[in-house]
Amino acid sequence: MKKNDDLLDPSELQCPGFRAAGTASGIKKDGSLDLGLIVADTPVRVAAVFTKNRVWAAPLIVAKERVENNSVKAVLVNSGNANACTGDGGISDAKETTDHVANLLNLPTQGVIPASTGVIGANLPVDKINTASESLVSSLSPVGFLDCARAMMTTDTFPKIVKRTFSADDSNIKRGYTILGMVKGAGMIRPDMATMLSFVVTDAPLKKEVLDYALREAVKTSFNAITIDGDTSTNDIVVLMSGGDPQETTSAEITEELEKVFKENLDILLKDLARLIVKGGEGATKLVTINIKGAPDKQTASDVAFRVANSPLVKTAFFGEDPNWGRIMGAMGCIEGDFNPMKADIFFGDILLVSNGIGKGINCEKRAAEIMKNREFDITIDLKGGNSTFTVLTSDLSLDYIKINADYRS
Amino acid sequence: MKKNDDLLDPSELQCPGFRAAGTASGIKKDGSLDLGLIVADTPVRVAAVFTKNRVWAAPLIVAKERVENNSVKAVLVNSGNANACTGDGGISDAKETTDHVANLLNLPTQGVIPASTGVIGANLPVDKINTASESLVSSLSPVGFLDCARAMMTTDTFPKIVKRTFSADDSNIKRGYTILGMVKGAGMIRPDMATMLSFVVTDAPLKKEVLDYALREAVKTSFNAITIDGDTSTNDIVVLMSGGDPQETTSAEITEELEKVFKENLDILLKDLARLIVKGGEGATKLVTINIKGAPDKQTASDVAFRVANSPLVKTAFFGEDPNWGRIMGAMGCIEGDFNPMKADIFFGDILLVSNGIGKGINCEKRAAEIMKNREFDITIDLKGGNSTFTVLTSDLSLDYIKINADYRS
Repeated sequence: MKKNDDLLDPSELQCPGFRAAGTASGIKKDGSLDLGLIVADTPVRVAAVFTKNRVWAAPLIVAKERVENNSVKAVLVNSGNANACTGDGGISDAKETTDHVANLLNLPTQGVIPASTGVIGANLPVDKINTASESLVSSLSPVGFLDCARAMMTTDTFPKIVKRTFSADDSNIKRGYTILGMVKGAGMIRPDMATMLSFVVTDAPLKKEVLDYALREAVKTSFNAITIDGDTSTNDIVVLMSGGDPQETTSAEITEELEKVFKENLDILLKDLARLIVKGGEGATKLVTINIKGAPDKQTASDVAFRVANSPLVKTAFFGEDPNWGRIMGAMGCIEGDFNPMKADIFFGDILLVSNGIGKGINCEKRAAEIMKNREFDITIDLKGGNSTFTVLTSDLSLDYIKINADYRS
Repeated sequence: MKKNDDLLDPSELQCPGFRAAGTASGIKKDGSLDLGLIVADTPVRVAAVFTKNRVWAAPLIVAKERVENNSVKAVLVNSGNANACTGDGGISDAKETTDHVANLLNLPTQGVIPASTGVIGANLPVDKINTASESLVSSLSPVGFLDCARAMMTTDTFPKIVKRTFSADDSNIKRGYTILGMVKGAGMIRPDMATMLSFVVTDAPLKKEVLDYALREAVKTSFNAITIDGDTSTNDIVVLMSGGDPQETTSAEITEELEKVFKENLDILLKDLARLIVKGGEGATKLVTINIKGAPDKQTASDVAFRVANSPLVKTAFFGEDPNWGRIMGAMGCIEGDFNPMKADIFFGDILLVSNGIGKGINCEKRAAEIMKNREFDITIDLKGGNSTFTVLTSDLSLDYIKINADYRS
């Protein structure tokens, strides 16, 4: 899909109270950015969610401990090496590199959390990272977030970074806030997150419990509602840091208003970032929104949505711009649940292609094929068996997906 | 993969008491064979298993009813049209075409079961089929099975047909028997069968309950232990017909011996046919056997095996001949179960590549990469947490898979 790199202006991508940087440490052989740093200038509250894969990379083990200790003020992220399946040595490496940065920043040990993405099974090049950290720290800047987002990229074709501003006010005071998020991820993507790192900072002064809840809720409809290849990874992490002083909000009304507006904006921000992941999915030429409605319950809606969205046959039909709805029927038929797949209606855009499980004929297919020529389109499946809904974003399965992943390490 | 068409001699592919034929009815635009027929010359007992997909094609609905009525003596199979998602009209079409053949064969209505494979959602061209049935019936021959196997092919690149002979004897009598099976299937393949039709005939005189049990057991380790793309279909059926007279075996000993030897041979035959499906998988360049051992229970062994075997990232690595074991670790980590993925050993052939979840280094990877250059290789994953095992056959995910499926209907 089209890159959006050129459209981004680093001076627009700032968040008061935070600085960031990106540098090339030499992990990536081509000399591109591969080491990033985000630092809070004031005390922060931090929330994080982690992969549901049972194989955890070393940096996640270290990060979880440090987030729980409430000691975090910075994130050190590298691409090109996942530091996963590296045993106790990998944990030592994650600690050594982050402790070195903590020392450079005059933060307590445990003040920096590690995050890594790239090839599984290789040892982290600690010396390269420690050497590069010196210049990384010295180049920290309020306008460094775009470089940091670039430093996280692996098979990503463009940096994924979004900023929103919002205000919370009552009758007396109106305050403006910023929320800035970046994400990397292009393959090994499915719900429960996968080879996906995301860091979000805000100057809105929020309590830790508010952050925890807001983040858990926001990932459900964003990072956990996308899929590229149905594979999850060992390294996923989303970190949310809130700066500012929660004591500064003087009234319960303002606090409540701020929390509400913040949640709304976090939801939108993470959805925007999730959308960028699928749009930039490995080899993706299509971004398809699968809407399930009329499901008997949320679980069934989600099961059907992901079964369709992950089907290689459905996804190759997207690539071929072929409204091959039989494959959607076949995918739906694999799902148990209190619904009858033979009663389903299927829409491509606003074209009713299948009614009660039966095709509406060649003219409808031709109109659906026209819709599929767009880069982005929607498919709606109405199970007509209840009121539950679920929406998932997916990409097509293209020749380039195979090329990228067959050659990834060579 | 290499075609085995040239190696097959129709005169070698016979089973006493059965005849078959294949013809071109015009369903396929290129004029290749698309209509097949298998007929028993004597009364037969019939067992069948059907897709576990909840969306059933019309021919399956008709076939199930007729198998249960014990009235079957023939199978009419077409390719190029699945007669699925075609509503009540599809059921009428399936009945009309098979009843026409029953009439031509002087069989009672319900004597012929329909089977179809191809595009979902199009109506069966009844007139074409009925017209072609006349010549189909007149060309029935003991050496017609290879043509029938060809007439079932869709994206299959070669006909898949296997014959075995076996004998059952006690001290007094020795009798020779034949079992002949054919299968089609190359995509939409995963356990619980998918876009897969298989017909097996034998002159061994077996009771229906023996057939039922033997078939149910044999599919577990054959058709239900392969995967190409993880998608199941609406049209799968396996039919087993036994000719001869069960009364002819005069002693309980001979009957018991026959049943035992038959089951052994059916198991092997279906495994051979299943192997041909994966070998001829859409775009497949590799046939990979995934062995799980040391699992706490059969379900976990099966879950891990299929998760690895269906992972697009693992399968593209097979295509790229890249021993990217981190993707196997990632796939394993998605499975719940009473085992620790970080304790697993992973072998490529006899090369230990991962020990206790940690890579054994670049030299082992180089040797594993050599093994992956073969068309067929094994991967063994030892979970070291029990005694259960499971084996699944899978293919790689190649550029040609995408090309085949993106262009399937065009």
